[in-house]
Amino acid sequence: MNLVEHLRLPPGPVDLTQWATDEAHDFDGSKSDGKDALAELGADLADLQERLFAEGRTEGSRSVLLVLQGMDTSGKGGVVRHTVGLIDPQGVRITSFKAPTKDELAHDFLWRIEKALPAAGLVGVFDRSHYEDVLIARVRELASAEEIERRYGAINDFEQQLVASGTVVVKCMLHVSHEVQKERLLARLDDPTKYWKFNPGDIDERELWPDYREAYEVALERTNTEIAPWHVIPADKKWYRNLAVGWLLRDALQGLNPQWPDADFDIDEQRARLVDEAPLT
Amino acid sequence: MNLVEHLRLPPGPVDLTQWATDEAHDFDGSKSDGKDALAELGADLADLQERLFAEGRTEGSRSVLLVLQGMDTSGKGGVVRHTVGLIDPQGVRITSFKAPTKDELAHDFLWRIEKALPAAGLVGVFDRSHYEDVLIARVRELASAEEIERRYGAINDFEQQLVASGTVVVKCMLHVSHEVQKERLLARLDDPTKYWKFNPGDIDERELWPDYREAYEVALERTNTEIAPWHVIPADKKWYRNLAVGWLLRDALQGLNPQWPDADFDIDEQRARLVDEAPLT
Repeated sequence: MNLVEHLRLPPGPVDLTQWATDEAHDFDGSKSDGKDALAELGADLADLQERLFAEGRTEGSRSVLLVLQGMDTSGKGGVVRHTVGLIDPQGVRITSFKAPTKDELAHDFLWRIEKALPAAGLVGVFDRSHYEDVLIARVRELASAEEIERRYGAINDFEQQLVASGTVVVKCMLHVSHEVQKERLLARLDDPTKYWKFNPGDIDERELWPDYREAYEVALERTNTEIAPWHVIPADKKWYRNLAVGWLLRDALQGLNPQWPDADFDIDEQRARLVDEAPLT
Repeated sequence: MNLVEHLRLPPGPVDLTQWATDEAHDFDGSKSDGKDALAELGADLADLQERLFAEGRTEGSRSVLLVLQGMDTSGKGGVVRHTVGLIDPQGVRITSFKAPTKDELAHDFLWRIEKALPAAGLVGVFDRSHYEDVLIARVRELASAEEIERRYGAINDFEQQLVASGTVVVKCMLHVSHEVQKERLLARLDDPTKYWKFNPGDIDERELWPDYREAYEVALERTNTEIAPWHVIPADKKWYRNLAVGWLLRDALQGLNPQWPDADFDIDEQRARLVDEAPLT
């Protein structure tokens, strides 16, 4: 069983209370070792991403989409900063989905998602995603039960099309414990450099923790497809969370196995143009 | 004279042949020292950028726009990767401007530029920019002489509005020598992992080097305003080019002096909500 397999959600009913939040699966070292391992991973990620980017600039149509979901403080932003931040920002397209605007609400829930999909050669990153439309939308009853029900199928169809068109979809649920969320929210209240990250609404949502857990469990079960499976990432240890998503990203890129494109011009002819050029006047 | 002053283009006529391409102004160390200095700068940049981002998420309306121009191989992409790559990708918005599309050509040249401006709190990066519309457009006669003439003024007005609305504009001309461009183009032809970066059209443009130099000189002179001055970055040494742009970015952020926003909620009240909460059932 490789690293990625261990994080993958098996098919069937999901009970998140049975999934560890503080484990460091498949990693033996300390926090400091974990950070070193992530930095080392950076070279692999950068190389693979550049190959994918090169492919996308020529004949390719393939891309990667990393979907990050998780309760408040689970570290979606941290993963973007520390893991996604390892690769060339030119090759990355990050979208943070907030509460939908009036304009977005006037369309199907997937409308704004489609507009944010990565172009060929890019690594797209969704900080929250279409899954909010079956998570907060379910808990807060922002849509009817029938509409929520419809959405699970719509998401599966959408992701199937996405995969068929050449995008590898890497779905990560950053799984933080109720206790650690409390610590992290308190830390934001104790540190003036973190006030801006705090919103009293975060505690309102926390009070609905069991409802969110259930909404996650249903969503994970219903959308855990063979072609776009879910991964549950223990997120109480920030360093492990960052490393594990890095593994998944590397795995996705290695699966694509992008190759440097061939020259579509005559190399010797072009070299001769440079070598034989007239001096600058 | 601080670091930034040394790179700043003084007002008046511009003769690029008088500007060094291989200097390392204000830096005494080796290439390896330069790389270390850039990595160290990363912590400052990350801190300042996060403050700006925090400000943008609350009451702020300020942002930074880094404009990168330069001949092919001058290293616009390298600066994005190595310098911009030091800061949190969530706080950055990068736009690479290619030849305008039909749709873009049907609008004023600044139409696509305005759409790419950074929102409050962000660092926008233009890899090529509205300056192409007075550079290649002039050399290749893609617009009439009158239209090109009009554009210098339009650019100055546009940038003045931009600055007035809270954006610091950092304009960098990456100044590479004719010889080093040749070396870099040849290197792309000698390395199969770099073929994708090569385009025979790059040599066509190189053959017009004196015309481009003149177009740059005119554009720099005409748009070198007090509120949005140009900087000429010696770009033959990649490490120095990356470091120098890092200095300019830090200087711009320090000039804004962004502050952590105050809490807009009652801290003790929120803390009590967490401390006194009912246990999870």
